[in-house]
Order: sequence, then C-alpha cells, then structure tokens
Amino acid sequence: MRTRTVLKIIGRLLMMIGVSMIFPLIWAFYYGEKEFIIFIASVVITFFFGYFLSEIRTKDEGLRLIEGLGVVSLGWAAISAFGALPFFLSGTLGYLDAYFETMSGFTTTGATVIINIDILPKSIIFWRAMTQWIGGMGIIVLAVAILPALSIGGMQLFNAESPGPKLDKLKPQIRETAKILYGVYLIFTGAEILLLVLGGMGFFDASCHTFCTLATGGFSTKNASITHYNSPFIEGVITFFMFLAGANFMLHYAALRGKIEYFKNREFLFYVGILIISIIIMSADLRYSVFNSLSDAFRYSSFQVVSIMTTTGFTTSNFDAYPALSRMLLLILMFIGGCACSTGGGIKNIRILIILKYFYREIYQFVHPNAILSIKIGEDTIPEDVIKGVMGFFMGYISIFVISTLIVTAYGVDLITAFSSVAATLGNVGPGLGLVGPMYTYAPLPNFIKIVLTFCMWVGRLEIFTVMVLFVPDFWKE
Amino acid sequence: MRTRTVLKIIGRLLMMIGVSMIFPLIWAFYYGEKEFIIFIASVVITFFFGYFLSEIRTKDEGLRLIEGLGVVSLGWAAISAFGALPFFLSGTLGYLDAYFETMSGFTTTGATVIINIDILPKSIIFWRAMTQWIGGMGIIVLAVAILPALSIGGMQLFNAESPGPKLDKLKPQIRETAKILYGVYLIFTGAEILLLVLGGMGFFDASCHTFCTLATGGFSTKNASITHYNSPFIEGVITFFMFLAGANFMLHYAALRGKIEYFKNREFLFYVGILIISIIIMSADLRYSVFNSLSDAFRYSSFQVVSIMTTTGFTTSNFDAYPALSRMLLLILMFIGGCACSTGGGIKNIRILIILKYFYREIYQFVHPNAILSIKIGEDTIPEDVIKGVMGFFMGYISIFVISTLIVTAYGVDLITAFSSVAATLGNVGPGLGLVGPMYTYAPLPNFIKIVLTFCMWVGRLEIFTVMVLFVPDFWKE
Repeated sequence: MRTRTVLKIIGRLLMMIGVSMIFPLIWAFYYGEKEFIIFIASVVITFFFGYFLSEIRTKDEGLRLIEGLGVVSLGWAAISAFGALPFFLSGTLGYLDAYFETMSGFTTTGATVIINIDILPKSIIFWRAMTQWIGGMGIIVLAVAILPALSIGGMQLFNAESPGPKLDKLKPQIRETAKILYGVYLIFTGAEILLLVLGGMGFFDASCHTFCTLATGGFSTKNASITHYNSPFIEGVITFFMFLAGANFMLHYAALRGKIEYFKNREFLFYVGILIISIIIMSADLRYSVFNSLSDAFRYSSFQVVSIMTTTGFTTSNFDAYPALSRMLLLILMFIGGCACSTGGGIKNIRILIILKYFYREIYQFVHPNAILSIKIGEDTIPEDVIKGVMGFFMGYISIFVISTLIVTAYGVDLITAFSSVAATLGNVGPGLGLVGPMYTYAPLPNFIKIVLTFCMWVGRLEIFTVMVLFVPDFWKE
Repeated sequence: MRTRTVLKIIGRLLMMIGVSMIFPLIWAFYYGEKEFIIFIASVVITFFFGYFLSEIRTKDEGLRLIEGLGVVSLGWAAISAFGALPFFLSGTLGYLDAYFETMSGFTTTGATVIINIDILPKSIIFWRAMTQWIGGMGIIVLAVAILPALSIGGMQLFNAESPGPKLDKLKPQIRETAKILYGVYLIFTGAEILLLVLGGMGFFDASCHTFCTLATGGFSTKNASITHYNSPFIEGVITFFMFLAGANFMLHYAALRGKIEYFKNREFLFYVGILIISIIIMSADLRYSVFNSLSDAFRYSSFQVVSIMTTTGFTTSNFDAYPALSRMLLLILMFIGGCACSTGGGIKNIRILIILKYFYREIYQFVHPNAILSIKIGEDTIPEDVIKGVMGFFMGYISIFVISTLIVTAYGVDLITAFSSVAATLGNVGPGLGLVGPMYTYAPLPNFIKIVLTFCMWVGRLEIFTVMVLFVPDFWKE
C-alpha cells in the first residue's frame, strides 16, 4: 500500500468532515449554546489536520485496489477519531466513549453510550444525527461504486443497474454515481422532514430523525426513541422511510426517473417477503402473549421488524421483554439486514438468497449427480467468483461473530447480552437484547468490550474484507 | 430411488438390530428381570419385520448413489423405530419419547428423556448403552467408507488413508474397511472396560460407560453421570477414550499397526490444539470464579471440554452454572465437534480448518490480486469440489440451526435453552444449557420440540445432506 497516497485522500475526507461540522455550529449559535466554541475548535482541528495530510506530496500513480481498501477502512477510522471531538471536548463523553459513539454514527449503527440524551445541547444532538447521515451517504456510494469494483464479498454483481466500473475508471464514475445517489438521498431527506413536521414533530427533531432514518442509523433525539411521540402517523412515516433506506437505492433512482423496477428485482421481493412473514409471526406472537388487540400487536411488530431488519434500531417498544419467539426472530433479522446498495447493514438479503440457493443446489446435485447446475437469481446466472465472494463473506461474518462473542463473555456479561451486542454492532443495528436492550445503553460495559464492539461496527459496516486486509502483513508493504 | 432395493437393505439392518437385542435379553435373564419377555418380543418383531423386508424381490441392479443415500437416512430412522420397542413395551417411555431416546442412542447424541435412570431395569439400561455402541460402529463405517463415496459435505478427501472407493466397488471395500475398524473399536472397548473395572467400576457399568464413551454418545447408567463416581482415575480413563473416539479412527488403525501418524495429521493437530487452548481458558475462568484450587479447575475443565468437544456429553459438573465465558466456549465446541472418521459429531475439525483457511485466502487475495491461491492442509492441496462440499455443508448446518432454533422458541422456551438444545442435538452432543442443562433432561419439553430435536439429531449425525435429499421431490421417483 502506498501510505502517502492513502493519507492524502484521508486528508481530504477529514477536510470534508471539518466543513460539515459547521452545521451543528450554526445550531449552537441559533440556540445560543456555549458549545459553539467547541465546534469552532473541532472544525479548525479537523479541517487543518486534514489539510496538512492532503498536502503530502505523492507521485501521481493513481489508486490501485490495495489503496482503495486502505482509504475505505482507515478513512472510516480516521473520520471517527475527529468526529469524536465535539463529544469529547464538550465533556459529554470520555474519548473512548466519544470514539464509540462516533463510530456508531458514521457506521450508521446507532449503538449509544449516552445515558441521558434529553439533556444534551441541541448542537451536540445535531452532530450526532449528522454523523449517521454522512455515514449513510458514504455507505451508499461505497456500496454502489467502490466495493463492487474492489470485488468485496461478491458485490461485483449485486448492483443490477451497472456491472460495476473498472478500477481505473473509478474516479469519474464515482463522481457521476455519487451525484445521482445524493440526489435520491436529498429528495428522501426533504420528504421525510416534511412529513414528520406535518405529523407534529418540531423541525429540529424531524431533521435529526430523518438523518438517522435514511442512514438506517437509529440515533434518536429522545431517550425513549420513537416511543416518545406515541403517534401512529410518525411511526408510519418512519417505518416507510426505514423500509426505503433498507432497499437498493439504484431501484429508487430508477423509480424517480419513472421506471418502476422494484418487483422485477428478486432481492427486493425476498426482502419484502421476509419482512411480511416476520411481521405476521411477530404480530401473532405478541397478540397471543402481550397485547389485547391485534392492531396494537401489528403496530408495534411492524415498526420493530422493519427497524431491526433494516438495521436502523429505532424503538417503539421494549422488545427485550417480548417472548422468546419474537426475540429470536429479531436476532435473525439482525443477521439478514438490508439489501445491497442500501444504507442497511447485516449480511444482506442478496447474500442470504445466494447462500440458500447454494445449499439447495448442493442437495439437488445428489439427486441429479450429472447435472451442471448454476445458481440463478431471476434470469441472471450468478458467476462462480461472485458465489466464492459470498461464501467467503459468510464464513468471515460468522467467524468474527463467534470470536467476538467469546471475547465479550470473557469480560463477564451474560450470553444473551454477548450474542446480541455483537450481532447488533456487527450488523450495524444498534440496540440488542439483555443489558444492551432497548431500555439500556452500551455505557456500562467495560472499556475492553466497547473496543471489541467498536471493531465489530467498523468491520461489519465495511463488508468485513475491507478491514480484515489490514491484518495481512503484506498489506503494509509499499 | 429404487424403493424396493432400499427397503430390502433396511430389512437386513433390522435383522441385525433384532439379533443385537439378544444381549440385553441375556442380562435380563442374568438379573432375573421380568423385562426378558419384552426383549423376546422386541427381538421377534424386529427380526421378522426385517426378514419380511429383506425378502422383497428386486432386480439385481446394484446400488446407485441415490439408493445409498436412501439406505443411510431411512435406515437410521427405521432402526430407531424398532430399537425403541424395549423402552416402549416395558412402559419406560411413551412411543414418541422412546423414539427420541433411541434416535439419541443410534445417533450417539446422548440427549435423554428418562428422568430417573437409576431405577431402570439393567436390561433396559444395557440396551440404551448398546444403541450408542452400535450407532458409533455404524458411523465410523459410514464416515470412512460410505459418505466419502457419496461425496457428502466434502468428505471425499477427509480420509487421509485411502482416496475413497468408487461406488461400484463399494461393497467389498466396505466389508474390508469395516472389519479393520471393528477391530480397532473392539480393542478399545476391551481396554476401556478393563481400565474402568480396575478403577473400581462394576463390570456392568463399565461396559455401558465404555459403549457410550467410544461412540461419543454419553448415556450414563447413573442420573448423576460420571459425577456419581467422583474418581479422578475413572474420569481420566473416560477422558482419554473420549479423546481417542473423537479422533480419526484410521489414525488409530495405523497406530495399532505400528505407524504413529497422529502428529503428521493436520486435523489431529488442530483438534488437539483447540482442546488444549479450551482447557487452559476454562481452567483459568473456573479457577477465577468457581474453584479454590487450580487442580480442581483443571480436573473439571479438562473432562468437560473433552466431553463436549468430542460430542460425548458425559458430565462431572453442572457446567450450566459456570460463568458466561466457559458456557460460551462449550457452546462453540459443540459446533466444532470431532474429527472426520471419528464417532464425534458437529461440523468437524477438518471442515472448520478449511473454512478458516478459505476466509483467510479471500482476505489474502485482496493483497495479492493476481496470485492463484489454493487451500492446503499440510502438503495436500484441497480440490475445489471438496471445498464446495464443505461450504455447502456449513451453509446447511447454520441454516438448519437457525430455523430449528426459531421453531423451538415458538414453543415457548427461553433463548439459551433453544440455542443450546438445537446445538446439542444437531451436533450430537446431548446435554445443553438452561432447561436442557446437565442437571435436567429433555423430558419436560413439549412433544413438538422433541420432534424437531429428533430431526436435528438425525440430520446432524448423517452429515446434513443424506437426510436433506429426502426433501427433493425427484428423490422419490423410481
């Protein structure tokens, strides 16, 4: 890896993050909060450190695969390091906690270590929400344009619209694709803010919740999350936009151009199918054991199923108190996650679909030993190298899940907390079960566990391999 | 599948099972138990039903792959149906429970629905132990000679000694290999009985415990399992033989011929490595939180780690009361299981090794994108079709685990019980955590859960695919 080239690009990222801190700075002025000084300091430090890095002299050799990986993985770590400044400098959190919170933001996870959000300065709350919005933007561009080109986890063919640009043509293509996706993202942002304001939410809260919906992030401005509003309309709006955010953004782009292709897309159908089945199961389970009316059971089930499967993590109920079936279902949904090219995390629907088809193919092969069987998604035959990438991803995801859970139990939390905290951070969901359930935060966990879970958020968000290559010694050779 | 051919062979299996019931019959006479009449009835019913099936007329067309699968999967189900007769006819258990117990025996799982073993007639206890011994014998022959020929789950190359016979040469090869393996099995049986008797155990109990050790089954003649004896010597002997039973029997065969090849075998080294690391972690954990002396911590850890990883399931402690780290470790070991060509269950060490190497290869490939990387175990390059089989197996194992756990939670048990009961039956371990922990039995679970777990034992023991093909409609066509 050409370290200088990577640092130079990370420098530019930091400058952008520095500039983006001007928005919470404006809110600090607007609300007359003394935190404006904190944001000025953060902007200055971040921007100038970035500027300093961006001035590193490099030979103009362009980006290779390996530098691409370095920029993505180290970039996410670096922006979290500087994005943490407002939390740290304002005294809201210690630096480790601030780093956890910011990584949780930029990875659109939504796991929080802030115990009392209601008393925080508005500017800090706004920055917290903004980290998710920025993270979500970054993730879509990454998923659509960059990771497929790097052949990460079989993503080279997930984007049905374009076969994925070649690496040497990456830069102009990224810019083009990014523009389109930012357009979709901004339209959704405007629409959701508008609808939430119409539903009676203030503009500030509506903006923050919108940021965290579209990023499938799940930070709320309230301790009680969406439960705070107790409004079916607001829940409906958020459910709808979480659902959109968990689906492939290229499909939304096509739809905005007038081409409705949703129901031609197998991954989308699978995603909708899993959501519907899960809502039916959970509604039945909750009607049977928690609520007296089916409409209540449906209301809370549908919100929670969509929130968890899209890996958003907003809550309207303490689902940790639900019966085992509903809890297990939510745990499974944390692993499945959103669609490819969405802001959702987890393994992704398309991969689950390929895995299930792979398993069935292996069984079917015994009955027809001489048949040459390919795996098809709709009309498309999935090439073997994509399948190989998907298998590798799945092995990696499960391996990291198992090892992280073991480490977390070593620090003395119960099994359910250990399982679900790793599942919820690796899948970029946010809340889990047990001690990290919807009524609690990650704050009381020992520092070592927070470090492990920060790693899980990072490695999970960047599709495993982008981070794991850092552990190959050869990666660091010039 | 040619149903008549399959039924004919299953008939012969049933005749063998019928004959084997003569051994508990002898014990019934010896102890003057009234159950001798039960065993006479069971022998007669099983033998003659088998004889009846074996007389089915077939064209002598030989066995194809598909009939091989049918014989194995349906055969295991059929012998459990008849092996259950003594439990059922003696009034010990209802038929569903009797079937569960017998499937648990023949699959060498060791999950029990008998609440009070101590009061059972000796002949019934002996038959219970014998089902495991027979199951263990069957599994070794299956794993060494049959499943590799059927290319199940990548097993075609796991047997380092022979490249696996072609299907048309299967019959003579099976007979040859079976003879050798039965020899090893019988030598171990004699040796362990002798040592246990020397350690102060009666001949009857020594025989039963030996049967269940070498099969990595784990049925005990005592409610308290091995805790009953509270003897470090007995624990040591059983630990040693569990360890042997979880290793590749072809290595034992070589060793008995004077060729010590254990430490040339990568899977064996991996198996030993995992055991040692696990014992160290668990000893430290238990020393820190449960025991006052390191020797006690080591004593109970080593027994429990070997018992669970080899998927035996004997207990010398209530490990469900241990701290989260130890419990999580045992849960992971349930998934890893024994070596290929052993009586141990689980995913198997060789597959875990291939999965980890596969994941690392995927990562390494990013750093060296043009390198052509093969997966090596020791000096041997693993062919891609074996890797494909291993991947398919892993996908299938995890899929069945997740779906079964979801079904089990639907019937109202807690998550830990659900997770661990499925892990312990699918991996053919026996005891799990929570309601199916070492202090309890599977008896109180609802019938529907027992059916699901019976299925898990069956599908797990027969390397997933052998059973799963039954769900492909084409399988049943003549």
